[in-house]
Amino acid sequence: MHPADLLQQSIDRTRSVAVVGLDPRPALLPPALAAGARETETDPNRAVAAAFLGFNRGILDAIAGRCCAVKPQAACYEAYGMAGWRALADTVAYARSLGIPVIVDGKRNDIGSTAEHYAQALGGGAPGLDGAPLAGLGADWSTVNGYLGSDGVAPFLKSGAGAFVLVRTSNPSSAELQDLPLDGGGTVAEAMARLVANWGAERRGVCGLSAVGAVVGATWPHQARAMRALMPDTIFLVPGYGAQGGSAADALAGRRSDGRGVVVNSSRGIIGAWQGKGGDWRDAVRAALDVMNRELAM
Amino acid sequence: MHPADLLQQSIDRTRSVAVVGLDPRPALLPPALAAGARETETDPNRAVAAAFLGFNRGILDAIAGRCCAVKPQAACYEAYGMAGWRALADTVAYARSLGIPVIVDGKRNDIGSTAEHYAQALGGGAPGLDGAPLAGLGADWSTVNGYLGSDGVAPFLKSGAGAFVLVRTSNPSSAELQDLPLDGGGTVAEAMARLVANWGAERRGVCGLSAVGAVVGATWPHQARAMRALMPDTIFLVPGYGAQGGSAADALAGRRSDGRGVVVNSSRGIIGAWQGKGGDWRDAVRAALDVMNRELAM
Repeated sequence: MHPADLLQQSIDRTRSVAVVGLDPRPALLPPALAAGARETETDPNRAVAAAFLGFNRGILDAIAGRCCAVKPQAACYEAYGMAGWRALADTVAYARSLGIPVIVDGKRNDIGSTAEHYAQALGGGAPGLDGAPLAGLGADWSTVNGYLGSDGVAPFLKSGAGAFVLVRTSNPSSAELQDLPLDGGGTVAEAMARLVANWGAERRGVCGLSAVGAVVGATWPHQARAMRALMPDTIFLVPGYGAQGGSAADALAGRRSDGRGVVVNSSRGIIGAWQGKGGDWRDAVRAALDVMNRELAM
Repeated sequence: MHPADLLQQSIDRTRSVAVVGLDPRPALLPPALAAGARETETDPNRAVAAAFLGFNRGILDAIAGRCCAVKPQAACYEAYGMAGWRALADTVAYARSLGIPVIVDGKRNDIGSTAEHYAQALGGGAPGLDGAPLAGLGADWSTVNGYLGSDGVAPFLKSGAGAFVLVRTSNPSSAELQDLPLDGGGTVAEAMARLVANWGAERRGVCGLSAVGAVVGATWPHQARAMRALMPDTIFLVPGYGAQGGSAADALAGRRSDGRGVVVNSSRGIIGAWQGKGGDWRDAVRAALDVMNRELAM
């Protein structure tokens, strides 16, 4: 299915535009989970990976049907080498088995055949020694850094998966480059937005939205509205809600007039919601997501 | 050792500014190596990974002492999942055991703790379940995409490894964003160059060069000279020599007046040099590097 249709159908089915960021870190693990992994795995990288997978499975069971997608952060898994990579692959597979669309957040970028290899890793798989394709992660969407231009984005789109291109990120120093004014008007981020709109123009799904999305931070709501004018059919993946200071109104500022076109990520605010609370940690995760959904149901 | 000093000492010792790109692909493997891996490994991802590692070891044995660094391309390994990641780790370790500095080309980018995780994966390692650090890849340098500004680059520098930031890439479409003229003068790439110079100003080694390098493509020699004026103490990692059309003179256009500050990458031109030739494939790889070194000894 076209990646925009997949995401829109998930939004319609779950009545949620929330994306839960699966960014596990040792300090975020429920202590019993960490202790269990330490007992069963002697290799320290595998112990972390086993704990991450157990954590993610618990989260996914708790949130299935209540969010439109999940977004594993590749860095958290890569930091634990091959064991971490396997935990990422198993997490993606488990989310998909529950019918939850998966956005792998890797911010990959390169050109030509190298970018194709990244797309193969994230999506459908690379060729084996006999040329036949092997299995990749099977992500429905990924995040991509567009600094290299069309050559750096096109290979990610060939695979059939969607790509959210970084346009205006949520961090304070993003302005150093992204807000620079261009000769002739607009900013660097707005130039990136125009490229995103062009790349997506021929790649709309049945729902009318495009397979080329944009990362537009919740910390810049006034820019989100300007961005919407430049990218009318683009799904915005909005980071910065909650922990980074963006409100629900900020996060939704870039919505289209029909209410579509925005999904909002929260990571620590959901997966760390059990910290400092009693009871089952999965209940606290689910409750935090329910609060987020209510806030976003404006 | 400071990463610029490590690289400069390697240049002085080998009398070479050549960086050999370790970008293995099934189609680039000597047939006997591929056949051997297919026989000994039943899992198809592991078979590719075993063949890649055998290929890289052969290359590294052939080129040790004749190039200043090697640059494995992360995408080529990631495309084969956890088996590929292990081949990357084993390749980095083998290169270091031969005394060859390693630049892991991953073009990673993110902010805060997420960027730290990437730096841990590439460099010294992430914390385990008990908080003690585990082993990372141990790269001496990595490549980083600076679109997110200082927040996105600083975590890569905390680790002590060097970071080559993408400034002006070698691909045709790089102009779409990187050449846009800014209000007040200069281009987007030149603004990135100024950021790189600032990030590196306090991070010079004994040799006077900085731990923050810049990727400046050989396909734009006139820009390389302008870039040098903006980044006087920055090492340029130059892609695009050979296969992408840049000549030796183009590749060296950004050198400082003392002849320092440029390293030149070639991937397919070296590791694929055996194709269509008789004799031992390693001899052809070594001979191609010797030709490159002669061309660059201007």
